[in-house]
Amino acid sequence: MIKANDPKLRSWVEVAPDSDFSIQNIPFGIFTTEGALTRVATAIGEYVLDLTQLHDKGLFEGLDLPKDIFQQSTLNAFMALGKEKTRAVRNRISDLLEEGNQEIQSTYLKETALISMAEVEMLMPVQVPNYTDFYSSEQHAFNVGTMFRGPENALMPNWKHIPVGYHGRASSIVVSGTPFHRPKGQTKADDVDKPSFGPCRLLDFELEMAFITGKENQLGDPVSTQEAGDYIFGFVVLNDWSARDIQKWEYVPLGPFLAKNFASHVSPWVVTMDALEPFVVPGPQQDPEVLDYLKYNTDCHFDVNLEVGIQPEGAEETVVCNSNMKYLYWNVKQQLAHHTVNGCNMQVGDMYGSGTISGPEPHEYGSMLELAWRGTKPVPMNDGSERKFILDGDTVLMRAHAQKNGVRVGFGEVKAKVLPAK
Amino acid sequence: MIKANDPKLRSWVEVAPDSDFSIQNIPFGIFTTEGALTRVATAIGEYVLDLTQLHDKGLFEGLDLPKDIFQQSTLNAFMALGKEKTRAVRNRISDLLEEGNQEIQSTYLKETALISMAEVEMLMPVQVPNYTDFYSSEQHAFNVGTMFRGPENALMPNWKHIPVGYHGRASSIVVSGTPFHRPKGQTKADDVDKPSFGPCRLLDFELEMAFITGKENQLGDPVSTQEAGDYIFGFVVLNDWSARDIQKWEYVPLGPFLAKNFASHVSPWVVTMDALEPFVVPGPQQDPEVLDYLKYNTDCHFDVNLEVGIQPEGAEETVVCNSNMKYLYWNVKQQLAHHTVNGCNMQVGDMYGSGTISGPEPHEYGSMLELAWRGTKPVPMNDGSERKFILDGDTVLMRAHAQKNGVRVGFGEVKAKVLPAK
Repeated sequence: MIKANDPKLRSWVEVAPDSDFSIQNIPFGIFTTEGALTRVATAIGEYVLDLTQLHDKGLFEGLDLPKDIFQQSTLNAFMALGKEKTRAVRNRISDLLEEGNQEIQSTYLKETALISMAEVEMLMPVQVPNYTDFYSSEQHAFNVGTMFRGPENALMPNWKHIPVGYHGRASSIVVSGTPFHRPKGQTKADDVDKPSFGPCRLLDFELEMAFITGKENQLGDPVSTQEAGDYIFGFVVLNDWSARDIQKWEYVPLGPFLAKNFASHVSPWVVTMDALEPFVVPGPQQDPEVLDYLKYNTDCHFDVNLEVGIQPEGAEETVVCNSNMKYLYWNVKQQLAHHTVNGCNMQVGDMYGSGTISGPEPHEYGSMLELAWRGTKPVPMNDGSERKFILDGDTVLMRAHAQKNGVRVGFGEVKAKVLPAK
Repeated sequence: MIKANDPKLRSWVEVAPDSDFSIQNIPFGIFTTEGALTRVATAIGEYVLDLTQLHDKGLFEGLDLPKDIFQQSTLNAFMALGKEKTRAVRNRISDLLEEGNQEIQSTYLKETALISMAEVEMLMPVQVPNYTDFYSSEQHAFNVGTMFRGPENALMPNWKHIPVGYHGRASSIVVSGTPFHRPKGQTKADDVDKPSFGPCRLLDFELEMAFITGKENQLGDPVSTQEAGDYIFGFVVLNDWSARDIQKWEYVPLGPFLAKNFASHVSPWVVTMDALEPFVVPGPQQDPEVLDYLKYNTDCHFDVNLEVGIQPEGAEETVVCNSNMKYLYWNVKQQLAHHTVNGCNMQVGDMYGSGTISGPEPHEYGSMLELAWRGTKPVPMNDGSERKFILDGDTVLMRAHAQKNGVRVGFGEVKAKVLPAK
């Protein structure tokens, strides 16, 4: 067991039972306060803990960290230290936060390094050199396939042999809260000859989790499923916005483009793969048997509860979806092994979306396309309105957390409000 | 007219009539010599001209350039100065190289800053944050469509309304000469039930040109066709390697992935959009009429000759294709306007492939898939062998140049040898 994951640990910082940021979490993020430089922090309860101050005070002595490793605008340099070192940092932070430890608790650092979350601005946690989006939820692929081709032909012939994925746009991945406008684009109605241009009419969220790599492989050198764990630093929640009407007209034959690249929002805290280790569960039986390079020895699915809420302008939020990360058919080791099997090189900070995560029950579907079944079953809101897709002024919120043996490890939320088309 | 483009200019550096690097070119690239730091250079005749030495000597005085602007490992910082400034630098270099000018010619710089191309190593010219590949040659789309769906349905319904494009992999774009191995991957033959794993059997080149942006737009702010020219810094030749058998099995419904991301080679010199200005020609009449946001006022197609050669191991090269950049249906302003019309944000160094550029004649097809028509018309080599696709040990060479009124502006070559699968 990784030391920081010990379920018996308690912190001297008050952590509410429903907090995502228990002492067993210790995620990493980038924050700033008014007028100050950006820095690396962890989260504990309702606080961020400024790691630059701890490092300046010598509390990471012996770990041989670069002097400026926490004075950064992204986590890339920190992740690039490698799993052994980042794990040692996480373990050390855990020690410092444990109830008996006085090194922060009884010093001025308690007042200066522990900062209320309400007082900080969380920034994009990583610089993303490459973004890949998989399509690894069977229920989602089945739902979408059923709508367009009927249940008999719902899954493409390759779907159970390949963790299907495609390249997405890295530049437009932004952190929770970043304002964005409804995209405009070209669409074509079935009953007219010509396309037209205007604001997207079928704006949708996609509930995804994304992993981030902290290690590179060289061009030409595949990463096996056995090695993959060493490359994966951690996870964030991802809202991979989709413009369904733009997608429909553009995506054959080369895949989604403008329908997906106008904005994707991520949660600000990167929860380490280590912190999720206690929540590993077996994946589904894969039938037909996969090719050798996709076989794996150690389970790598995660029991993480997922939730999506829609908050109309000026009204209360309605939770419209509860799903779970364990519903993925392909796990992250398989995704990474597949991605690199041709020699493709991964970089530090690369992000890999899971694809929309839909569970077997209708309330577990991870997009409006599925929840409202192509607009045929509008989703009721608490304010009396209903939704087929997302309206201007709506805020979409996604949350994720794992819970077991009294320990909760969560991601906080990713939140974004849809502003009207410019 | 841009001053540096004046066809009457002659340089004191000897430039052969068939050199790509006339005084009217002045491209930019990154080079190193053994043990030295990477630097920005231009090319003239058979020489690179080290711009750091010129800058140190004060030869760019008055242009207000940052001190380290040429002491770089990529052109990104230079391009980010903006068109006005990079154009001024190009004009100034042109002055310095003009036959009457003594500022280099009569100083020690002639010996130290002018370095034989044979003595330097050219490196990847830009750091590529995002890579997009378009599909903008009508003949290519028609050829591929004809093979798979017949000539009546060759072009998809969206093709003449949208400059179809998709996101590619940025990390595996490498400079001319970078070794790479035949990729392995999953493929499925039509006559069997299950896929198998092994080396790609249908390795192909794709003859493309790529443009590079030197200016950013903010997320949410489209770039119009009128504004696009200010964002485009220059062009390189791009060999967008494709594994046709991997592509066939993986690409429905989300587009090409592992079939394309194992390696893409680019030429090392970035020829500026300014240098290509004298070679602008009208594009094809677009019918049906395009939507307003895709209309443009100023021609932006380029008459640039393209050539592909295959050199089998130990044998002489056979030129297998002659095409021209002017054959593109969609121009770069339309591509950029389309890419950003939904608010997608471009970054400095982003690269945009044209898609395979095929002309109307069979010897003008830009891929082996088309040249050998899906393997049915093997292409004869000078050494007596023939090719349906690319074999291990083959070196593929691509070259591009424009020529008019006695002035030649070219790209040099992009060259890559296929090593056997690992």
